Amino acid sequence: MSREDRPDGFVDALARGLAVLSAFDGALPGMTLSEIARRADLSPATARRSLITLVSLGYVGRSGRRFHLRPRVLSLGSTFAISSHLGAILRPELSALVARFGGGAAAGTLDGNAVICLEHQATPVSARVIGANGTYHPATGTAIGRTLLSGFTAEQLETWFDQLAGPDPRPLTYDLPVDRRAMRTRIKPIRQRGYEVNPGRGPGTLCGIAVPILDLDRQVIAALNSIDETGATSEQLVDERLAELTATAARISRQLVRVPMLTELLRPVPASIFNS
Amino acid sequence: MSREDRPDGFVDALARGLAVLSAFDGALPGMTLSEIARRADLSPATARRSLITLVSLGYVGRSGRRFHLRPRVLSLGSTFAISSHLGAILRPELSALVARFGGGAAAGTLDGNAVICLEHQATPVSARVIGANGTYHPATGTAIGRTLLSGFTAEQLETWFDQLAGPDPRPLTYDLPVDRRAMRTRIKPIRQRGYEVNPGRGPGTLCGIAVPILDLDRQVIAALNSIDETGATSEQLVDERLAELTATAARISRQLVRVPMLTELLRPVPASIFNS
Repeated sequence: MSREDRPDGFVDALARGLAVLSAFDGALPGMTLSEIARRADLSPATARRSLITLVSLGYVGRSGRRFHLRPRVLSLGSTFAISSHLGAILRPELSALVARFGGGAAAGTLDGNAVICLEHQATPVSARVIGANGTYHPATGTAIGRTLLSGFTAEQLETWFDQLAGPDPRPLTYDLPVDRRAMRTRIKPIRQRGYEVNPGRGPGTLCGIAVPILDLDRQVIAALNSIDETGATSEQLVDERLAELTATAARISRQLVRVPMLTELLRPVPASIFNS
Repeated sequence: MSREDRPDGFVDALARGLAVLSAFDGALPGMTLSEIARRADLSPATARRSLITLVSLGYVGRSGRRFHLRPRVLSLGSTFAISSHLGAILRPELSALVARFGGGAAAGTLDGNAVICLEHQATPVSARVIGANGTYHPATGTAIGRTLLSGFTAEQLETWFDQLAGPDPRPLTYDLPVDRRAMRTRIKPIRQRGYEVNPGRGPGTLCGIAVPILDLDRQVIAALNSIDETGATSEQLVDERLAELTATAARISRQLVRVPMLTELLRPVPASIFNS
């Protein structure tokens, strides 16, 4: 968020600390102060003060010159899963999909320019390759992401594309540059058709089929996918899985709308997509 | 942490913001400003500034007078699961335990005065009652917690008990008051015996069996459990599951020690238990 957009009372020190927590990546053994500072776009002195605090509070550990996240960071996300009742609703449904089709199954929603994984389940074989809850995935490059975008009006979609090009969502962006016209054409029919397929691109890649989860107003508030590990074609995925996936999405939707706040907190509002 | 213990450079505003994030509980529809302030032990004005920031950054949402967590908070914990490779190691092993015994399986480590769940898997039936990754559970009241405590020396255990009585670990404490002598007697033989059982207390309660996960120096760095949903007795749990659970813990341990930083970040060091 640019400095001018910050509301009165905004606490820079808190934003910087969260940027430092978000700067940790998948590499072990940890990162040095200068690596963290660079990734968080902070001066080393500023990043150092955040790290001192995070180490004191038990969120970050230190081993020599390198810093790493500690298990306590998991607690920050866990309250969401509980308070939202989402885990309790999604887990049994995703497990049942995995029991039937193998591979993996996940539910996600749009968070800024990316899809955030709300919950996932997978067979022991697939569990190694499918991301954890809370991981980000490209929005335009995944079936689940394009399904979520299909819930936008034409105008909302253009606003979303505009913001995609801005400097702000940097931490979440790892989509390739988007051919806006091609993507528009691809996304438009998904809402009508009711599903989207991502064909795997060559050996070892995963393909999947995604369907929307709707609220009472038939707004897309999340999407659900089934990920294949057999190398099935797109046509086979649709034939085998679409009916079951659609029925699962309808059951999840009926459970979500019983708790109105749940649909509220999942709804991707274009106006607030980028922290506005 | 008391004010005197804070190191030079400690950023109070960051600590307060994280206290606000941690103050959210499982209740929907969200909490009011004054509820959050009370739970985070902050003045309403201070809590308000943290909330303004967290809403701006997309971690918290607002609906009328009530605030709720947004999916983005999941991202703060996800990097831990990835960076530590823990999910990739634990998930297939826990899934295999659930496939064999039903119920649930979880791995946890000690974080301050509580057990934090690093990863869990469960059957669709059990998934509704077993907590999410990152949730806290009582240390002395669970088999997994007592197994973790059995890794402490007698002196470390007394230090841990002393700190349990202090004012500081408040956010994590929901154990009942501990009868220290009884607990000492209960914990001591676990290390030698190699497992601990938690008998269910009446209908509908869950019982489980836990074993330690050791590093190369044979220090307890985590513990693994298998949770029963059949109402089996303690003896049946030991007869049926101990051998498989021990073999699973040994496999996990062999994978963990290949990445030295993993054992480092899991090790519960009594001296640093309470943010010192």
